[in-house]
Amino acid sequence: MSEQGITVKKSENFSEWYSQVLIKAGLVDLRYNVQGFIVHRPWLMRIIRAIYRMFEEELEKTGHEPVLFPLVIPEENFEKEKEHVEGFRAEVFWITEVGDGSEKLDRKLALRPTSETAFYYMYSYWIQSWRDLPLKLYQSVSVYRYEKNTRPLMRGREFLWIEAHDAFATHEEALQQIREDMENSRKVIWEKLGIPFLFLRRPPWDKFGGAEDTYAADTIMPDGRVLQISSTHDLGQRFAKPFNVTFLDKDGQRKYVWQTCYGPGVWRIAAALISIHGDDKGLVLPVEVAPVQVIIIPIYYKDADKEKVLGKCRRLEELLKGAGYRVQVDAREEYTPGYKFNEWELKGVPIRLEVGVKEVETNTVTVFRRDLLRKEKVPDEKLLEHIKYLEGAILEELKNRAKNFFESRIVNATSRQEVKEALRSGKIVKMPFCGREECANDLKEATDGGKIRGTEIDFKEGDYGKCAWCGAPARQIVYVAKAY
Amino acid sequence: MSEQGITVKKSENFSEWYSQVLIKAGLVDLRYNVQGFIVHRPWLMRIIRAIYRMFEEELEKTGHEPVLFPLVIPEENFEKEKEHVEGFRAEVFWITEVGDGSEKLDRKLALRPTSETAFYYMYSYWIQSWRDLPLKLYQSVSVYRYEKNTRPLMRGREFLWIEAHDAFATHEEALQQIREDMENSRKVIWEKLGIPFLFLRRPPWDKFGGAEDTYAADTIMPDGRVLQISSTHDLGQRFAKPFNVTFLDKDGQRKYVWQTCYGPGVWRIAAALISIHGDDKGLVLPVEVAPVQVIIIPIYYKDADKEKVLGKCRRLEELLKGAGYRVQVDAREEYTPGYKFNEWELKGVPIRLEVGVKEVETNTVTVFRRDLLRKEKVPDEKLLEHIKYLEGAILEELKNRAKNFFESRIVNATSRQEVKEALRSGKIVKMPFCGREECANDLKEATDGGKIRGTEIDFKEGDYGKCAWCGAPARQIVYVAKAY
Repeated sequence: MSEQGITVKKSENFSEWYSQVLIKAGLVDLRYNVQGFIVHRPWLMRIIRAIYRMFEEELEKTGHEPVLFPLVIPEENFEKEKEHVEGFRAEVFWITEVGDGSEKLDRKLALRPTSETAFYYMYSYWIQSWRDLPLKLYQSVSVYRYEKNTRPLMRGREFLWIEAHDAFATHEEALQQIREDMENSRKVIWEKLGIPFLFLRRPPWDKFGGAEDTYAADTIMPDGRVLQISSTHDLGQRFAKPFNVTFLDKDGQRKYVWQTCYGPGVWRIAAALISIHGDDKGLVLPVEVAPVQVIIIPIYYKDADKEKVLGKCRRLEELLKGAGYRVQVDAREEYTPGYKFNEWELKGVPIRLEVGVKEVETNTVTVFRRDLLRKEKVPDEKLLEHIKYLEGAILEELKNRAKNFFESRIVNATSRQEVKEALRSGKIVKMPFCGREECANDLKEATDGGKIRGTEIDFKEGDYGKCAWCGAPARQIVYVAKAY
Repeated sequence: MSEQGITVKKSENFSEWYSQVLIKAGLVDLRYNVQGFIVHRPWLMRIIRAIYRMFEEELEKTGHEPVLFPLVIPEENFEKEKEHVEGFRAEVFWITEVGDGSEKLDRKLALRPTSETAFYYMYSYWIQSWRDLPLKLYQSVSVYRYEKNTRPLMRGREFLWIEAHDAFATHEEALQQIREDMENSRKVIWEKLGIPFLFLRRPPWDKFGGAEDTYAADTIMPDGRVLQISSTHDLGQRFAKPFNVTFLDKDGQRKYVWQTCYGPGVWRIAAALISIHGDDKGLVLPVEVAPVQVIIIPIYYKDADKEKVLGKCRRLEELLKGAGYRVQVDAREEYTPGYKFNEWELKGVPIRLEVGVKEVETNTVTVFRRDLLRKEKVPDEKLLEHIKYLEGAILEELKNRAKNFFESRIVNATSRQEVKEALRSGKIVKMPFCGREECANDLKEATDGGKIRGTEIDFKEGDYGKCAWCGAPARQIVYVAKAY
C-alpha cells in the first residue's frame, strides 16, 4: 500500500504530496533527459484535452476563431516592442543552426515564448478597414521559456496554454473584452472545474512586457501560495504602432487598432485542479474532466461466481456507455479488488461501481463516491438516474469545499504585524495600500516574498485610511500573497 | 468575380489552381516572414481539427493512448540509431543559445523531425515485463524539417501530423500492427474523407531511416503525381537495441521489444482533400469535415420582405443547430446573394439553403448541393430528413468521382516505351520489375523523376516475366509514379 499510495498528507506537506501524486497517478514522467521538459502521460493528456475543449468552446461562443501560427519568431519581429523584448529576452530559446551544424541560419529564430510578435506581424495585412474589426483569434499551443527553476505544470521550459489575440476599433471595446475574458475564465475555471480565483489588476511594476495593464486570475494553492492561472492584457496601441496595424475608420481616418491578449494557463489550471481537489488518497476529479468517469470493479472469490458477476459488469458498462459516459470494467485477474480500489482512487475516478454476488442477487449496485469516500446501494433500475445526479452533486461538493478553503485563506490586515503574521501562516492578505513600488519592495523583503497582487477589477482609487505596511495614506485595497 | 474566384481550371493548371484555392478560400497565409513556415487560418484549422479527431478516435478504439513528448531531442538521443541520424541529420533545426545569446546551451537540442528518439528513451523505463506490452501511444504535434523546397500542406519546415509508437513482444504482433494501421488509414482517409490510396511496401532504398521496412499510402493528385499521405514503419529491433528497450518475457528471458511507428500525415491529407475533391469553383468538402456544413442565404429585394425572409432563415438555423449541424445564416447586407453564393462555393460549404419570398410563401427551401452544383426545392417539413440524406449522398458522390479518377490514372505497362509514355501523360504505372536499385535509378533518370513506389502489402515475390524497364527477369509487380 505504501508503494502504491501517497505517503504524506496534503495539509502537512503539500510540496511532497504534489510530487508524489504527479508520479503515482501516472500524470507525468520527469526522467526525460532535458531539464525542464516533461513527458505528459495519457492520464494527464486526457485531462488537459478536456480543459482545452472547455476553453475553446467558450472562446468560439464569443466569436473567436482558431488559427495556428509558426513556432518560430524572427529576431526582428521580437524586438519591435521595447518593453516586450525586455520582459522576455532572458528566457528565449534560439535556433541558430541547421543540418550538420556547418550551416548557420542567416538570422536567429526564437521559439515562441508568447506570440504577440508573430500574430501582429500578420494583423498588419489582415486589418485594413473597420469592417475587419473586431478580429478575435486564438491558438492552443506549447510555449517555450528558459526558466531557471521549474516545477511540473506550474513553471516549465515548455508549457501548454491558449493565447487569444483580439483587435478592436476603440479602447472601450478592448476594455469590454477584458471583462469577457474574465467571464470566460469564470465559466470554465470556476463553474466547470470548481477552482475559485481572484481576478486582479496587477500593479504597474508587475505588468506583462508591452501591456498598458495586466489583469490576472490567482487561485490559492493548499500551502497558501497563490498561482496565476490566466491573464488578460490591455495592450493599448503599444504593439499596433511598431507593427503598423491600422484601419480606415468609418469617418475616413486611418487609426491604430486597440488590442488585448488573453492567456488561459491550461498547464497551471491542471496543476490547480490536481492540488485543490486532491486529498490524501490522490486525485479527485470532477466528472466532466475525468478520463474515466465510472470504473466498474467485479468482486468474486469463487470461479463459479465469475461469469455472473462479470456479466453484470459488462451490462452496466454497456448501459453507461450508451448514455455517453466514459466507463471501464477493471477485469484484471492479477490484482485484488482492494488493490484496484486504491489505484482508481489515486487516479481520481469520481464514481466506482462495485459488483459482487450480493449485487447480482439483489439487483443492486454499490456506488462509491470518490469525493466523499462514501458507499451506497442503488437499485439497478435507478443507476443511470443516480449517476446523472452524481455528476452535478460531485461538482457541487468540490466547489463548496474549494470555496470554503479559499475564503478561509483570505484575511484582512491593517498593521504591519497583522500582515506579517498572516503571510507567515499561509494566508492571503487584503489590506489598504499606499500604491508605491518602494513600499511593495520593502514588504516583499520583510515577509520573505509577500507580493502585492493587485486590486479587484472594478476597484476605484480613493481614501482608504492608512497603508497597512508603511502607514502613508492608502489609495487602494490590495491583495498580498506569496506566489508560485 | 475574377478577383473573388479561381481563375484557372484545375485540370489545366493544377499547380496554379492549388495556389489560388489556398489563398482565396482563406486556408493559409504565406506572407509570414520566415521561409517555409506558414500561417494556418481558421477555415483550414477547423478542417485540420476534424481530421485529427477522426484519426484520434480510430487510434483510441484500437488501444492507443494520447501522450505529449517534449519538442526538443538532445543530440545524444538523436544519434543512437545510425541510419536514423543519417536519414534526418541534414534536416534538423538546432537550438544552441538562450537569452541574450551570451549563454550557450551545454549541448545542442534538436527540434523533433520525428520522435522515435524521444519516445524510445522513455520506453526503456516504461517497459519492464511482458505485462507492459503491447504499449501503444500517440501524439498529435507539429514537426520540423529544414526542407529546401516547400509547398503549403505538402512539404514544409513546420508541418502537422500524428505519430503513433507501438512496442510488442513479438515480430508477428508488430506485423499485425502494420495491417491495423493500414485499416486505420482506410477508415479515415478513404471511408470518411473519400481519398483513395494505394498502400505499398517501399523498396529497400526508399525506407525510413532506421526501419526494416516502410509501408506507405500514396494518393494520386490531379496532375498525376502521387503524394505520400501516411506511413507505417516496421522498426524491428533496430531502436530497441541502442535504447535498450527490453522486457522480461513469460519464459523468464529478457528480450528486446519489436516496434512499429505510424504517421498519418494530417497536413498532406488536408492537401489531398482540397486537391482531389476541389473543382474549378474552389473547395468541395464532405459534410463531416466542413467547418460550416450548411450556409443559409436570405434573398430579398424590398425592405418589406426582409423580416419574413430573415425570420425563416433563423428558424431553419435553429432547426439544424438543434440536430447538431454546423450552420450559419449569412445576413450581411453589404454583399449580394450572388456574391455570397460564390464565396461559400469557393470555401466548399457542402449544402446551401436559399430562402426568398417564394420559399416563405410556399413553405419550401431551395437546397443547393456544392458537389453537383445542382438546386432542388424541398418542403420545409422534409428538410431535416433531406439534409441527413445529403450527408451520405455527397460523400458517396465524392468517393465515386475520386475513385473513378484514381482508377483511370493507373495503367499497366510491359515495355520501356509504355512506361515512358504513361509517365509523360501523368499516369501511374503498374509493371513487372526486376527489383534492382540500379534499374530504378535508370528509370528515374530517363523519365524525369519516375519512382518505384513499391509493391502491394500482400504481394509475394515470384516469376513475373520480364522487367518492363530493363528486360531482366521480373520478381515483382510494382507501381511507378512521379511524386511530390
